[in-house]
Amino acid sequence: MLSSGRRRLFSALLQVQKRPCQPSRDMRLVQFQTAHLKEPHLGLESGIGGGVVDLNTFDPTLPKTMMQFLEHGETALSVARRALTAQLPVLPRSQVTFLAPVTRPDKVVCVGMNYADHCREQNVRVPKEPIIFSKFSSSIVGPYDEIILPPESEEVDWEVELAVIIGKKGKHIKATDAMAHVAGFTVAHDVSARDWQVRRNGKQWLLGKTFDTFCPLGPALVTRDSIADPHNLKICCRVNGEMVQNSNTNQMVFKTEELIAWVSKFVTLYPGDVILTGTPPGVGMFRKPPVFLKKGDEVQCEIEEIGVIINKVV
Amino acid sequence: MLSSGRRRLFSALLQVQKRPCQPSRDMRLVQFQTAHLKEPHLGLESGIGGGVVDLNTFDPTLPKTMMQFLEHGETALSVARRALTAQLPVLPRSQVTFLAPVTRPDKVVCVGMNYADHCREQNVRVPKEPIIFSKFSSSIVGPYDEIILPPESEEVDWEVELAVIIGKKGKHIKATDAMAHVAGFTVAHDVSARDWQVRRNGKQWLLGKTFDTFCPLGPALVTRDSIADPHNLKICCRVNGEMVQNSNTNQMVFKTEELIAWVSKFVTLYPGDVILTGTPPGVGMFRKPPVFLKKGDEVQCEIEEIGVIINKVV
Repeated sequence: MLSSGRRRLFSALLQVQKRPCQPSRDMRLVQFQTAHLKEPHLGLESGIGGGVVDLNTFDPTLPKTMMQFLEHGETALSVARRALTAQLPVLPRSQVTFLAPVTRPDKVVCVGMNYADHCREQNVRVPKEPIIFSKFSSSIVGPYDEIILPPESEEVDWEVELAVIIGKKGKHIKATDAMAHVAGFTVAHDVSARDWQVRRNGKQWLLGKTFDTFCPLGPALVTRDSIADPHNLKICCRVNGEMVQNSNTNQMVFKTEELIAWVSKFVTLYPGDVILTGTPPGVGMFRKPPVFLKKGDEVQCEIEEIGVIINKVV
Repeated sequence: MLSSGRRRLFSALLQVQKRPCQPSRDMRLVQFQTAHLKEPHLGLESGIGGGVVDLNTFDPTLPKTMMQFLEHGETALSVARRALTAQLPVLPRSQVTFLAPVTRPDKVVCVGMNYADHCREQNVRVPKEPIIFSKFSSSIVGPYDEIILPPESEEVDWEVELAVIIGKKGKHIKATDAMAHVAGFTVAHDVSARDWQVRRNGKQWLLGKTFDTFCPLGPALVTRDSIADPHNLKICCRVNGEMVQNSNTNQMVFKTEELIAWVSKFVTLYPGDVILTGTPPGVGMFRKPPVFLKKGDEVQCEIEEIGVIINKVV
């Protein structure tokens, strides 16, 4: 028998599957496994909530990881484009385990206080420059994986975010050139232990942000060309079905282009690097009284045109 | 004709080469290239300032990167051990370009205010818990590579540090088990843009610490068993030949074992992960008046039994 938490997760997944699964020309790249595949494969998700086309079966010369796929650039992308227009067998979603669309990138760059409405919630001024912090890549997990509540924290909070995935290496990238360096976008959950972020560790945010499992990503890397306007997408977070964050990426203070220009003044960006672009209002720490995640909770982070990730807290 | 800066670098390298190069049973693992090798190779440095034995020629089945070497664990180490006792050709140091001993690790973990004498210099209390921050792996460069002074900073400072390189995956590692997770040690330079570290970026240290080239490492990963006591080693930094930092790793507040236990409460440590263990007193920002690095400076960071790295500022 399923526990109530597992039942909720199961029914949420079923709801996702019940959405109309129209054939789509959008390119939604995923990393996945099945019971029969020994190692992770690259695939195409056939629309939000749809099944998966195995790209490595379509073209066995294609790399098996997204990092390598992105490093191959246009050559690899053109194979995926051919697969989109071919009539290929689709693995039902129930047979597929989704991994994060990118694993072990060089960097997970994060941006603090980057939604105008989130700044108002905190009664702080909109920052004049992006505030940059980071997570270790080891915090990345898949779109339906569990978030492990660490015994070291009493204040684990949610944050839905739009994540940018870099497709082309660059340093000192101009804002006007920045979109050419973007492979695509995905949904991120910037899980945050507020006690460690705000009060401990000499007020350096890193530890509170980088516990294992604190960076669910996915399900798909939706390519840049597949999204009409990444800065006009509904973005929301639900905890146990209740809407807790509900905004639009048009509230971002520094948009994708400006963030890439800013970050690449400091560091070379590499294919696969992930930039989490900040969270809208509604996080637990600013509620009165504050609310934090507990074992058994289920968090759904959703962004229009991109998809939804569902992570149970254990 | 050599510029004065290049002449200094060249003469410093010659001095390194002139040191007595005794055959050593210490295991000093390096990543290197030569004019004739198309891709990086793994090697053994025959003592501080010595030539290099090509491990990939000795055993072509051995991986060519340190990350993979460490992931192979005892199997790979046993090959290196056999090479140590064999009579193998030694490439003269002049024919070798040393790369950082580890490139693209999952994490570069850094520890702040971890030398008792450095805390006294700042008039701050010794921290009760380690203060953890990070650099991106993209900041790593080789032991004789140039440090690029970014136009964005006016206050680039030096920090010699002992770096620990992880050899075995682990989470929640006990201090008493920690040394079993250490592959070895190397010399690190935690180059730091103080303006960005201390005053900008919402006081999050990351940006000031992670400009490209801000993490010279090397020359060798000296294995754990090759060092009598990592917490009793002379550690110093010279700028243009003048000693600016001069201490001993016995001044470390939290030793390697405690740092590994602490960090692994938060994150899984992977083979290749680097932990920079903090710097002794004598950094430029606390001098009266403060002194910062300028173009043409040459920084030598040296740790007893481990080696010296020499990086010119350009």
